[in-house]
Amino acid sequence: MTEPKQDRSRQTRQRLLTTTVAVLTSRGWEATTVALVAAEAGISRGAVQHHFPTREDLVVAALEHMFAARIAAVDALPDPGESGMKRVRAVVAQLVELVGGDLFRAALQVWTATTADPALRAVVVPLERRFGKEAHARAVRLLGVDDRDPEVRRLIQATLDLARGLALADVLTDDSRRRSGIVTAWADQLALALDLT
Amino acid sequence: MTEPKQDRSRQTRQRLLTTTVAVLTSRGWEATTVALVAAEAGISRGAVQHHFPTREDLVVAALEHMFAARIAAVDALPDPGESGMKRVRAVVAQLVELVGGDLFRAALQVWTATTADPALRAVVVPLERRFGKEAHARAVRLLGVDDRDPEVRRLIQATLDLARGLALADVLTDDSRRRSGIVTAWADQLALALDLT
Repeated sequence: MTEPKQDRSRQTRQRLLTTTVAVLTSRGWEATTVALVAAEAGISRGAVQHHFPTREDLVVAALEHMFAARIAAVDALPDPGESGMKRVRAVVAQLVELVGGDLFRAALQVWTATTADPALRAVVVPLERRFGKEAHARAVRLLGVDDRDPEVRRLIQATLDLARGLALADVLTDDSRRRSGIVTAWADQLALALDLT
Repeated sequence: MTEPKQDRSRQTRQRLLTTTVAVLTSRGWEATTVALVAAEAGISRGAVQHHFPTREDLVVAALEHMFAARIAAVDALPDPGESGMKRVRAVVAQLVELVGGDLFRAALQVWTATTADPALRAVVVPLERRFGKEAHARAVRLLGVDDRDPEVRRLIQATLDLARGLALADVLTDDSRRRSGIVTAWADQLALALDLT
């Protein structure tokens, strides 16, 4: 009889985390309260507080959940299966997509809130660093380059920084058309620099 | 007798705008209330409300003030006075510095708040667009390139997107050492692509 109860508890917890990330993305940091998350998830405030006694507990768990999802997305990136410049374009487009999107919007809310909350910053910095490392390693593997070369490492990092800048531009306006031209222009330079044409 | 009074009023207004931007940068969006800005500026709440009846009025005026300062900084960028690759490196470093810094931190607070506030977004988007255009035009002039060529235009835009991504990375941790390596690596590729070596 305990198994199904544990399952239900796990499912409730999972739903709370997913809802917290969704509320962060759509409503922003300030609006992300235990009360709103409880209402959106259709769970009583008391039940939420059983899982997460404070707003901070809930947000930190949601952050960890979100970064686990981002890292799983990195691992799930398929081999784009082209070669030469076409392959580099495909990999850069994948990375830009991976860094941006809804999880970026949720992360942005949290980054911005770290200004007023150093304890939150201490939680976010290692998560963000781990995501950056995984994305970097994946890019290196997909491109088949050797990042022990410092120049190669910098160009891969620059590509991830570009992806972050494009994701930020997309927060204000739908930037998809402009972005795809920039991805191609950048990828072509990267292919030349990495001798992958 | 009216002149000095107008001057004082202008100075008060100016001080309120500067203080609002500083409070946004250091304390974040949520903390930026009329009460806190009044306290930090050493001005009574009533006097603040004489200039700016609502928090929204104050924030919108501060935004316009901040973007005017960012655009003035674009116009003030000196000619770096080198040539070839060295010049490209200097220009890219200038652009990265220009896009980042305290005004970026303040702008980030506002961008993030636009998620919960479409009216604020309607104010920010044209300001941000104008800043982007000015920075782009300045980069084109300093590099001496012709951005009627779409490829040139995309590479300049990519450089500004990279600058934004680097600015965001710097919000979480002091990223200055890593950043300077990335600036150089990208600038060298840009110089090759634009035939400026």
